[in-house]
Amino acid sequence: MTSLYIALVHYPVLNRKGEVVASAVTSMDLHDLGRSCCTYDVPVCYIVTPLEDQQDLSRTLIDHWCEGVGRELQCDRAEALRRLEVVESIAEAVEDIRVRSGREPGIWATTAREREDALTHQEARMVLAEGSRPHLLLFGTAWGLAPSVFDQVDGVLEAIRGVNGYNHLSVRCAAAILMDRLLGAGERDENGRQVRLLPV
Amino acid sequence: MTSLYIALVHYPVLNRKGEVVASAVTSMDLHDLGRSCCTYDVPVCYIVTPLEDQQDLSRTLIDHWCEGVGRELQCDRAEALRRLEVVESIAEAVEDIRVRSGREPGIWATTAREREDALTHQEARMVLAEGSRPHLLLFGTAWGLAPSVFDQVDGVLEAIRGVNGYNHLSVRCAAAILMDRLLGAGERDENGRQVRLLPV
Repeated sequence: MTSLYIALVHYPVLNRKGEVVASAVTSMDLHDLGRSCCTYDVPVCYIVTPLEDQQDLSRTLIDHWCEGVGRELQCDRAEALRRLEVVESIAEAVEDIRVRSGREPGIWATTAREREDALTHQEARMVLAEGSRPHLLLFGTAWGLAPSVFDQVDGVLEAIRGVNGYNHLSVRCAAAILMDRLLGAGERDENGRQVRLLPV
Repeated sequence: MTSLYIALVHYPVLNRKGEVVASAVTSMDLHDLGRSCCTYDVPVCYIVTPLEDQQDLSRTLIDHWCEGVGRELQCDRAEALRRLEVVESIAEAVEDIRVRSGREPGIWATTAREREDALTHQEARMVLAEGSRPHLLLFGTAWGLAPSVFDQVDGVLEAIRGVNGYNHLSVRCAAAILMDRLLGAGERDENGRQVRLLPV
């Protein structure tokens, strides 16, 4: 397992008008994030929502594919969705990582905006390759993480820059690209399994 | 614009049982592929389906976001979806590239399976950086491109290898990762726009 955890945050995020809201869970996000986390061996993807009906919806979807008929039909979906954990808040995700790993995780936010203080993907990859402690990477749904989140993190990762300045990737695709940049192309053993993350 | 075109193929593809079928269009694929293509400046993403109702559905969705209310509401969606072209077959996509570019495109397939004859992503990137002719990159929906497609292409790109052997990415995420590997991180001018694709 890698030492990078992911959180898909539905609160606090911004809506189109810049107001802080709780967004609705999108089932496709759960499928795609689960599969990407499985591909890059991210131990847990936290689905963060304080709304009980959205928590229930997420758990129903996860249970459908991890138990009974769904699992029999497509076992690779069960493998992917088993990595998802529904939590009420970012704080609950952080606490869960503390319990699992016995260490205090670093917290990184992502943004589509340019920031001068941003950590480059190469710098973040170096930190992960050192592996001194786990990290939690936050992705905002809707129009992105609310400003209050940025005050509570240890760093913000640079935006994925488009070739021509356009940077409106879906959160599913942005997360996949970032996992590939941060965790892909490491050293492999004779069976093709990645055994060590290389700094670059 | 880059010289790489993308096609999201709904026929001929395989279903779970390995039979050749035409798959249904997923609206989320159109949104995500449009956005990723816009980000990496892929001129056109072809939505390949011979089914008239699926062509109509795709065009209705594209028109909704590119015209009228949809465009006013979210102009970045219009920018993304404008890159989508609905075509009947892979051959029609190839013909369209011929007409647009005046050159014969190379055709590459993608697969989630390991193949000894596969082109590495680095090799494909070098070909694109040389820029001698346009290329069309085919992604299969459902359980992947039908075997007959592989007989008609100039090359097959290596699979995106998971860290631990799991490789069931969604086609949306696989396409985003491949565009990033093949077209990202090039040379930029003082305004931050990518002006040249570097071989590695």
